[in-house]
Amino acid sequence: MIYLDNSATTKPNPEVLKSFQQVSQSFFANPSSIHQLGGETEKLLIKSKQQAADLLQVHEDEIVFTSGGTEGNNLAIKGIAFEHQGRGKHIITSEIEHPSVYEACKSLESLGFDITYLPVNHNGVVSVEDVERAIRKDTILISIMHVNNELGSIQPIQEIGKVAKKHPKLFFHVDYVQGLGKLPIMLHNSGIDLCTMSGHKIHGLKGTGILYLRRGVKLFPLFHGGEQERKIRSGTENLAGAVSFVKALRLIMIRESSERTNLFQLHQYLRSELDMIDGIEINTPKESAPHIMNFSIPGLKPEVMIHTLGKQGIFISTKSACSSKDLDESRIIKACGFKEARSKSALRVSLTYDNTLEEINEFLSKLKEALKQLKDVME
Amino acid sequence: MIYLDNSATTKPNPEVLKSFQQVSQSFFANPSSIHQLGGETEKLLIKSKQQAADLLQVHEDEIVFTSGGTEGNNLAIKGIAFEHQGRGKHIITSEIEHPSVYEACKSLESLGFDITYLPVNHNGVVSVEDVERAIRKDTILISIMHVNNELGSIQPIQEIGKVAKKHPKLFFHVDYVQGLGKLPIMLHNSGIDLCTMSGHKIHGLKGTGILYLRRGVKLFPLFHGGEQERKIRSGTENLAGAVSFVKALRLIMIRESSERTNLFQLHQYLRSELDMIDGIEINTPKESAPHIMNFSIPGLKPEVMIHTLGKQGIFISTKSACSSKDLDESRIIKACGFKEARSKSALRVSLTYDNTLEEINEFLSKLKEALKQLKDVME
Ligand SMILES: Cc1ncc(COP(=O)(O)O)c(C=O)c1O
Ligand SMILES: Cc1ncc(COP(=O)(O)O)c(C=O)c1O
Repeated sequence: MIYLDNSATTKPNPEVLKSFQQVSQSFFANPSSIHQLGGETEKLLIKSKQQAADLLQVHEDEIVFTSGGTEGNNLAIKGIAFEHQGRGKHIITSEIEHPSVYEACKSLESLGFDITYLPVNHNGVVSVEDVERAIRKDTILISIMHVNNELGSIQPIQEIGKVAKKHPKLFFHVDYVQGLGKLPIMLHNSGIDLCTMSGHKIHGLKGTGILYLRRGVKLFPLFHGGEQERKIRSGTENLAGAVSFVKALRLIMIRESSERTNLFQLHQYLRSELDMIDGIEINTPKESAPHIMNFSIPGLKPEVMIHTLGKQGIFISTKSACSSKDLDESRIIKACGFKEARSKSALRVSLTYDNTLEEINEFLSKLKEALKQLKDVME
Repeated sequence: MIYLDNSATTKPNPEVLKSFQQVSQSFFANPSSIHQLGGETEKLLIKSKQQAADLLQVHEDEIVFTSGGTEGNNLAIKGIAFEHQGRGKHIITSEIEHPSVYEACKSLESLGFDITYLPVNHNGVVSVEDVERAIRKDTILISIMHVNNELGSIQPIQEIGKVAKKHPKLFFHVDYVQGLGKLPIMLHNSGIDLCTMSGHKIHGLKGTGILYLRRGVKLFPLFHGGEQERKIRSGTENLAGAVSFVKALRLIMIRESSERTNLFQLHQYLRSELDMIDGIEINTPKESAPHIMNFSIPGLKPEVMIHTLGKQGIFISTKSACSSKDLDESRIIKACGFKEARSKSALRVSLTYDNTLEEINEFLSKLKEALKQLKDVME
């Protein structure tokens, strides 16, 4: 099997799964229980939060454990919106956000919020000037992603952070789900107030994630209740999930620092090889994250290629998994200004540190073969 | 170790944990991915949903997998409130709900909703007549729990369902977290529109749960995004969590039908023994769920007893875990009309099918010993 759909989800690291299992068995008590068993699990919870904070170079009380990226994004966006709507109802985001940001914003429109969806350039990148110009007196939130999940384009997060800092009354949220473990960003003192991460994209487990919430930032919780996670996210803590997330984070950060250059090289190799294939047009910009390569085969329905390769044990995807059930045009590729023939035929290869040159060569060879066969059919 | 805090959380069944691990390893692909691996995980997701539906005797499209009871309750209550607020902003609930219902309702008050908190009688039970009388033209939701988590008192859910049925424009939500696997209720054709369940209370895993959502009932999602779970709960599915929940549900339902009588007997024995101890006043009503026994030792701080027993490896709790950090009066015991001396000194023993008569006797003997020692100190 050659799995090249790592931006949809990754295979859990066996070490991570082992941590989950050990904690589930040995630390099953409720951290809110005041007896000694509860005390032990509470200690472990605090420790894993401290570890996450150290890895991300933030404060321990800025870590909120969540059930994943979609929860993180919704909690950040709706949480700020509901809490601070008295001050204004304007939110700035982009046209290329993940559905968990994009649809969260759309849902707020139905509740009377006013959303500005900033365009992107041909490379799928938002302009910092556009962000600055869009800020109004009633703007309460800017939500711009780091790495785009379809294209791999990188948004100027740190620059937008500087702009946000000049407007202390608005909050800045970053969807960091695709960048985590691939392209480091600085959170502390960056102008970023909220930042979403998800476990299953970094060889962690589904149902785990973190929302970074800068000290002093107030949210309207999505889950009210027993006041866990400093009232931001009530509900009996999934301690095993939290510990497993921190494990996954530590392991991916080690690989990020030692193997990122390899990944970049593999990615560049893939690009140069795809570039030479007739009928293929590359959508991912030259400056991009090291793990995503998006390309179109105008005239070919992407699902046909996916199934042809899938039959041979090679798994790639079309658009993001989260919107791939709906097989129409890619909203993201379209936003970059590409024509329909291209935005309707996009494919995505997404890598992880486990992928090898041999796998890429095998993929390329099978892709060329399939292209030849399908072209015969198409013509 | 004698663990008698099963209403706070239960020890995961090893079988359940094994299912989680197997699915995490072998079915890691994203069910939304259109390649063959995604197809396999999607099939398993559909199958586990079908199995859950069969066990609960409802339709497969009425099952929404969640991250637990707090999410289920918040999704039900806020989801109905936000979606149907155009029709009215009145909600009926009780004074003895779990914080995840109670605080969710309080949070809606801050957004302009009007909440009626119904009282309970001395036995901790809401009156059906009170519910009926509280219904107004602008009532959109009734949220009443099944088994109360502190007392074990049982609410007349099926009768309230009949009342709700007479008012087709309002919705009826039941927090079934404590009743599941202990006291069956009928969902289909019951007047219940939404019903919350949580995995970790039935020897399943934390971070898992189900919200039953009757066909045709519309919700405003808390998580917008990739439209998973029929748009009700977006986010990459925690398939391993879902499969593990269904396994836990099947296993607990087997024990419920074969061992419930035992549990009832153990519970009755515990009551009669406690009843004979000087200085102990039982708060759990005679007609109650078979696993919760709440009693007070007026004059004694509950945490003192908890720690004394805990040092000997016996774990019981005060109030519910979700509110036990705040060591004040129990809102629930107070609502039953008990005096402060009693509502401030409440202890809870909560059983599961694994508990034995020997364990209960050991607990009783250590409790008596501790009482004697502490009384000497108190006097
Ligand atoms: C950029 C981005 N944001 C958010 C998400 C949602 O995260 P999750 O799948 O953990 O809900 C994803 C992936 O699905 C993503 O790629
Ligand atoms: C009656 C009741 N409802 C809801 C909950 C919340 O469920 P969870 O812990 O899965 O968030 C609990 C337990 O904490 C409970 O006892």
